[in-house]
Amino acid sequence: MPRFQSKKLPAEVVLRDPVHGYIHIEDQVVLDILQSKEFQRMRRIKQLGPISFVFDGATHTRFEHNLGVYELTRRICDIFAKKYPSLCPGDGLWDDDNRLLVECAGLLHDIGHGPYSHTFEHLFGTNHEKLGQKIITDPYTEINQALRQVTPNFPEAVASVIAKTYPNAQVVKMISSQADADRMDYLQRDAYFTGVTYGQFDLSRILRVIRPYSDGICFTDNGMHAVEDYIVSRYQMYQQVYFHPVGRSMEVILHHLLQRAKDVYEQGTLPVTPRLAKFLDGNWTLEDYLKLDDGVMETNFSMWTEANDPILSDLCKRYLYRKPLASVKINEETKNLLPKLKDLIKQAGFDPDYYTDINSAFDEPYDAYKPTGKNANSQIEIMQDDGSLIELSELSPLVRALNGTFQGDERFFFPRTMLSNDDEPQIFDPLYQEFQKYVRNGELRYLRRHNKKK
Amino acid sequence: MPRFQSKKLPAEVVLRDPVHGYIHIEDQVVLDILQSKEFQRMRRIKQLGPISFVFDGATHTRFEHNLGVYELTRRICDIFAKKYPSLCPGDGLWDDDNRLLVECAGLLHDIGHGPYSHTFEHLFGTNHEKLGQKIITDPYTEINQALRQVTPNFPEAVASVIAKTYPNAQVVKMISSQADADRMDYLQRDAYFTGVTYGQFDLSRILRVIRPYSDGICFTDNGMHAVEDYIVSRYQMYQQVYFHPVGRSMEVILHHLLQRAKDVYEQGTLPVTPRLAKFLDGNWTLEDYLKLDDGVMETNFSMWTEANDPILSDLCKRYLYRKPLASVKINEETKNLLPKLKDLIKQAGFDPDYYTDINSAFDEPYDAYKPTGKNANSQIEIMQDDGSLIELSELSPLVRALNGTFQGDERFFFPRTMLSNDDEPQIFDPLYQEFQKYVRNGELRYLRRHNKKK
Amino acid sequence: MPRFQSKKLPAEVVLRDPVHGYIHIEDQVVLDILQSKEFQRMRRIKQLGPISFVFDGATHTRFEHNLGVYELTRRICDIFAKKYPSLCPGDGLWDDDNRLLVECAGLLHDIGHGPYSHTFEHLFGTNHEKLGQKIITDPYTEINQALRQVTPNFPEAVASVIAKTYPNAQVVKMISSQADADRMDYLQRDAYFTGVTYGQFDLSRILRVIRPYSDGICFTDNGMHAVEDYIVSRYQMYQQVYFHPVGRSMEVILHHLLQRAKDVYEQGTLPVTPRLAKFLDGNWTLEDYLKLDDGVMETNFSMWTEANDPILSDLCKRYLYRKPLASVKINEETKNLLPKLKDLIKQAGFDPDYYTDINSAFDEPYDAYKPTGKNANSQIEIMQDDGSLIELSELSPLVRALNGTFQGDERFFFPRTMLSNDDEPQIFDPLYQEFQKYVRNGELRYLRRHNKKK
Amino acid sequence: MPRFQSKKLPAEVVLRDPVHGYIHIEDQVVLDILQSKEFQRMRRIKQLGPISFVFDGATHTRFEHNLGVYELTRRICDIFAKKYPSLCPGDGLWDDDNRLLVECAGLLHDIGHGPYSHTFEHLFGTNHEKLGQKIITDPYTEINQALRQVTPNFPEAVASVIAKTYPNAQVVKMISSQADADRMDYLQRDAYFTGVTYGQFDLSRILRVIRPYSDGICFTDNGMHAVEDYIVSRYQMYQQVYFHPVGRSMEVILHHLLQRAKDVYEQGTLPVTPRLAKFLDGNWTLEDYLKLDDGVMETNFSMWTEANDPILSDLCKRYLYRKPLASVKINEETKNLLPKLKDLIKQAGFDPDYYTDINSAFDEPYDAYKPTGKNANSQIEIMQDDGSLIELSELSPLVRALNGTFQGDERFFFPRTMLSNDDEPQIFDPLYQEFQKYVRNGELRYLRRHNKKK
Repeated sequence: MPRFQSKKLPAEVVLRDPVHGYIHIEDQVVLDILQSKEFQRMRRIKQLGPISFVFDGATHTRFEHNLGVYELTRRICDIFAKKYPSLCPGDGLWDDDNRLLVECAGLLHDIGHGPYSHTFEHLFGTNHEKLGQKIITDPYTEINQALRQVTPNFPEAVASVIAKTYPNAQVVKMISSQADADRMDYLQRDAYFTGVTYGQFDLSRILRVIRPYSDGICFTDNGMHAVEDYIVSRYQMYQQVYFHPVGRSMEVILHHLLQRAKDVYEQGTLPVTPRLAKFLDGNWTLEDYLKLDDGVMETNFSMWTEANDPILSDLCKRYLYRKPLASVKINEETKNLLPKLKDLIKQAGFDPDYYTDINSAFDEPYDAYKPTGKNANSQIEIMQDDGSLIELSELSPLVRALNGTFQGDERFFFPRTMLSNDDEPQIFDPLYQEFQKYVRNGELRYLRRHNKKK
Repeated sequence: MPRFQSKKLPAEVVLRDPVHGYIHIEDQVVLDILQSKEFQRMRRIKQLGPISFVFDGATHTRFEHNLGVYELTRRICDIFAKKYPSLCPGDGLWDDDNRLLVECAGLLHDIGHGPYSHTFEHLFGTNHEKLGQKIITDPYTEINQALRQVTPNFPEAVASVIAKTYPNAQVVKMISSQADADRMDYLQRDAYFTGVTYGQFDLSRILRVIRPYSDGICFTDNGMHAVEDYIVSRYQMYQQVYFHPVGRSMEVILHHLLQRAKDVYEQGTLPVTPRLAKFLDGNWTLEDYLKLDDGVMETNFSMWTEANDPILSDLCKRYLYRKPLASVKINEETKNLLPKLKDLIKQAGFDPDYYTDINSAFDEPYDAYKPTGKNANSQIEIMQDDGSLIELSELSPLVRALNGTFQGDERFFFPRTMLSNDDEPQIFDPLYQEFQKYVRNGELRYLRRHNKKK
Repeated sequence: MPRFQSKKLPAEVVLRDPVHGYIHIEDQVVLDILQSKEFQRMRRIKQLGPISFVFDGATHTRFEHNLGVYELTRRICDIFAKKYPSLCPGDGLWDDDNRLLVECAGLLHDIGHGPYSHTFEHLFGTNHEKLGQKIITDPYTEINQALRQVTPNFPEAVASVIAKTYPNAQVVKMISSQADADRMDYLQRDAYFTGVTYGQFDLSRILRVIRPYSDGICFTDNGMHAVEDYIVSRYQMYQQVYFHPVGRSMEVILHHLLQRAKDVYEQGTLPVTPRLAKFLDGNWTLEDYLKLDDGVMETNFSMWTEANDPILSDLCKRYLYRKPLASVKINEETKNLLPKLKDLIKQAGFDPDYYTDINSAFDEPYDAYKPTGKNANSQIEIMQDDGSLIELSELSPLVRALNGTFQGDERFFFPRTMLSNDDEPQIFDPLYQEFQKYVRNGELRYLRRHNKKK
Repeated sequence: MPRFQSKKLPAEVVLRDPVHGYIHIEDQVVLDILQSKEFQRMRRIKQLGPISFVFDGATHTRFEHNLGVYELTRRICDIFAKKYPSLCPGDGLWDDDNRLLVECAGLLHDIGHGPYSHTFEHLFGTNHEKLGQKIITDPYTEINQALRQVTPNFPEAVASVIAKTYPNAQVVKMISSQADADRMDYLQRDAYFTGVTYGQFDLSRILRVIRPYSDGICFTDNGMHAVEDYIVSRYQMYQQVYFHPVGRSMEVILHHLLQRAKDVYEQGTLPVTPRLAKFLDGNWTLEDYLKLDDGVMETNFSMWTEANDPILSDLCKRYLYRKPLASVKINEETKNLLPKLKDLIKQAGFDPDYYTDINSAFDEPYDAYKPTGKNANSQIEIMQDDGSLIELSELSPLVRALNGTFQGDERFFFPRTMLSNDDEPQIFDPLYQEFQKYVRNGELRYLRRHNKKK
């Protein structure tokens, strides 16, 4: 296995971080990456995107998250090097020659993200994973130039860790598994900035019980409950924060806004800043992508509030001024009601293509057995005193309850006015009342028979 | 005195806030202000501006701060109404008819701020205080329309509280004094998001000991140490966070960047987004101002990185990619060295007009006696058991030490490369070495005689 | 329903509390109870007893816990009075006339506890519930005298709330249910003082979503996840703190110590402080009981370290100097091995009656349906928008996983030396090695056949 | 310099600590000390004694504090060993051979304390410093036996560090100086358990900037404000917690109680537990001392509540049931009023010798220059970039304000009833009213002339 060593800094650099206290930097290459323009760009991309419209404090960016993942990776390496140093190849313990590699992979694991990644990708065909690989391996980026100072093949090695093709499972799983530095950082960080306490699992204990083994990373027996708590925290953050209906509503608006902008742009009438124009033209480069950020997008949205197209203008205002759609839970059965409801919405003056949507948000909090797919073979193992491994859901009733399940809901989004009940009678009131008959306790429902008979 | 009453909301609305737990909204007018486009715009203006380049977590915005001030104001009103209700006019106790007024003033006290207020104002002649008054009183803003739902003269009343011309001293000082809801919120909030603990004074205790009296707001005797701690925390936040040399360096770059952009724009060659162009043209309206935010500014900076003007392009890169200037402390005596140093900097290839600057940062942590000026008559009073008042610095040795002093420093900013000591000999090395002779322990100093003799 | 009103204090009294910030006292009767000798006595009885030998910070006492329950009760009353005031009898909302009653019941719910309640009761036939009732209703206690200042029947009313015979279900369930002020306080408090984070559920959110209804107390729909989190926290505190094997080991020692002391005392040779002697004589009064506390017990243990009886002396040293027994998990099958193991222990010089024990610790984290018994009918209900109720485990997969289950383990305790592996061969080594064959991964196990064949 | 090495434990032992997260133990000798009966005894001695009557959460003991000091010492050694390892003797850097020595000194620095040390010492001539030395060096203690396993002279070396006679200033000052591990732990710990936030300085930053130098320990330039904050926190904890009038009142009662017990005992009529009797006989040994703890004392107080002597009985009740005396501030001038006041108190039925007292509480928060005495030469130095030292008060206006001053007050304590103002006229009312004329705003004062003329 290759040895990657960096020039050390003359003195450690530290950055204050409200979540981890301090980020510690000892290597020139880490500092160089940090100071690259591609990395600094992440200061301008919010970690949680439209969720900051629901949890106002969640203005933190991908910049701090990437630093946080780096810092956790560094701390895990410190722990492994002290407690579980490899004495000979193949002993299943930690070879600290991998430290710089995994630290850089942690630092760069999200470098390919742009503004509103999910929505943007869907509409413009960008792919943050491939773009991340390119940012690392393209010789014209400052990040690549920094990495090459270590060895010429260091960029590719870092990229392979992120792509999960690097042969050392410990290195890969420190960054990508059901209990990796990435998730540990974002759960804690998102909890801190949203002010939601559910994400606060006991990180100090997790770091006490984490250990390497031949096939990756596991946890010692005395830490079962800390790991269980982490899985439960993760589940709760998904249900309470990441899947919040208002956050999803803002994402629905964003999606329709961008879709409409594409349509209007094709008609040739939309003012657009130069770099975003490239994407609307379908003719963009990596350099163009690296110029995008939340501010660029919002600057365009702000210009478009004055667009001639009334739908685009309205959607931009809804996004910038935070006017979410309303929503109700639906299921396979009640989905059949949607055509009827869309018709009512249309009668009330809204184009259902732009003012309604179905949005599913489901997460699999834990899966003990996943032979294929994105999270293949990443179950969490608890090591017993005698070295044998037991998979987490066998030990924890809570994890067993979540194991293999998908938690979340599917919702129908529509204009909030459909639920309004003003005192004064209005022209649309009968429409609204008809609509509201189908909504109860936040869910769509069929009208009862005896109601129909009336 | 007028009575301002709002329509109550059918159910209290709460917003999660990591600093205060929850923001509670009970009045329709408060919700309407919150949902106005002028207020939502503050989501896109960072509270601490370039300081987020030093404390990476400090991405919080003026939006949350204004909500926080509102919430503290609301809580103080709750306390006053319960513990110190006025029984007859002139008894020096709290008349809760002022609640809605002071809550709205708290919510709107910073509404006039734009992106990088201080720097922007200096260059473009905007004035956030006057603009704030206008946003509140101009009949075309959504905020004004919301306020007018209370009474036609409510906007003016709110504006007068913020302008400190409203006749009730309790109302004015709850928002503007040496211990007001504004300061209490920003100290706590900035401490939370920077991760610096110095700002964490004991808010719950302050709220236990705050009370109204005939001339404003004071604190009961048993809370002296809590108030002392608050003054000390404020001093420490200034010295450690607000006056951080790197934050000031980024502000220096910003100032030169905008100055240069003005110059280049006048020569007619700079691409600019439409609303910012109005300011460069010197021909802007309130509507233009309300379209500005951090993202618009940075979008322009990003475009300008490709400007033909090499200084503008370089300054924009320095700002966006966080390349601060270095700095040293100076004083009246060592200022005389600056011409010599600027000359060295010029020889090293930097235009001193754009790459050097002097920046003073001084704060008066507390002033017991200030008959005139911005903070006139706002000393902090501690009420004794018998109702007599003692000014804080008479009771606290710490506050006495800070009383009337100005704390901070004056610094000279210059390119960091002047301090570089690379291993390889370089063309500019003798220049750098000459420069470095004048720097010691972070201060500028005169060379000692015996050095000169050599 | 009776109306209980107290004389108000001239000014609110507040006590600093690290868990809730402040305890607020407004009523003379609450202050009088607090200052009674029976209540002050709880300062000298640790909340978690021998668990402080495992979590060293857990030195907090029943005094603070009782105050904490009072404070939560007070806050819930404040919330109910503001948000859900009863307008007419039988409307299922909150009648604030019950406030003083429920506050006093909260304050006194644990007043009958003595030192090491569980162990002590088992051996000396005291009963903390009956004694608590007596302390409240006996006219000779200071607590009774304080309560009688409200009305002559107030003591009995308070006692009936604690005994769950009071007719108002809201009042009873605020103190005694699966989500009551008692549990909310001890989970938070024990988490704070042990330093274990698992107990930190989101109390501020729970208090936002709690509400009265006709049959007691429930939670609004938007608070389901906060309540789910509370149930999970409770489960984790049991598994991690309350059931910790070392804490149970110290309790096992305590039990044997007291048992042995009884035996030795009957032989007439044991020095005992006067009040404890009454219990060994089997001839105690309430006044004697109220003189017991942790310090009295430990003072006796300290004297007994010098007792002539070697087993009593040794057990006292083991308790005071924290020398826990070791333990292994057992089950119905492996229990059959215990006679053999006890025989080995006896051969190694320990009397199995005093140096071994079986201890079960099981908790039912939640039970949705319990028509009888101690927690009868106390399932947690979530109120939907339309006022209908859904039982918690129907909504939460986590609670469903725990519902009706018993979590914990059964352990066999024995001298730690049986597991020792000193370098030097010792006389008992073969015994120890034989013993250790039956222990693996912290559990007792049968030897495998092929081992026996060897 | 001697090299002290310990047998390492097979696996690190960790203890959960709410203040520092975990206490880490790697050495057999540290574990052995921890498990000694002399060290376990500290579990039964409260860190703050009677202050727990004011701050109810402050039930923490000297046991946890000693562990905390050990842990901070261990962390400082880790930092010094990594950042400032000595390369050759006399280079002023850290020689990690001193680690075990300073860790054990930290662990044992308070081992000589008994219950209510200050009060007890005054009355019974014990001396916790000498007793601590003896516990460490007496060959019959378990602590001595543990220490001797390192080397025969290790106990003496540890004792000399605590006595400040050990020749290495870095080692001594890590335990005893104006910014030592002892103070850092108790400020944080007392803040945590009292719930007072003032003590929460930024420990993580202090640990980043602490460093060794030739004459001891100093701090780097970039940490000035963290150290300043620590000094301010210390000052505030003294003023708010350690000098709280009610805590001092309970100490006054304790002192009079023990004094009275001595007197009554001499008359031969007082039941006393055996070990405490030795002290009343004036004939105690180290073994007797090691049997004392808070519980033993309170057990005696509890027995004495039934003593025949009414003053002793009353004082014991006042202590156990928390009935503090009242107090007022006095000064040199108003002290002259005390004979008159004592006379009034006597007329009201209280023996002034037992029911009044003068108590001074003054602390010197910082002293830059102290050539002699207990804290000789322990000013705090800040190291500049070029290695020169500047004394803290030269850099900080706050520390300068506190430098060399004594902060605190002198108070006169007396029965609270003297301040009572019952509605009903009582026999003592004229006495009380006369008394109250001399009290205003919590201070004693002379009556004004024109009052006397009346």
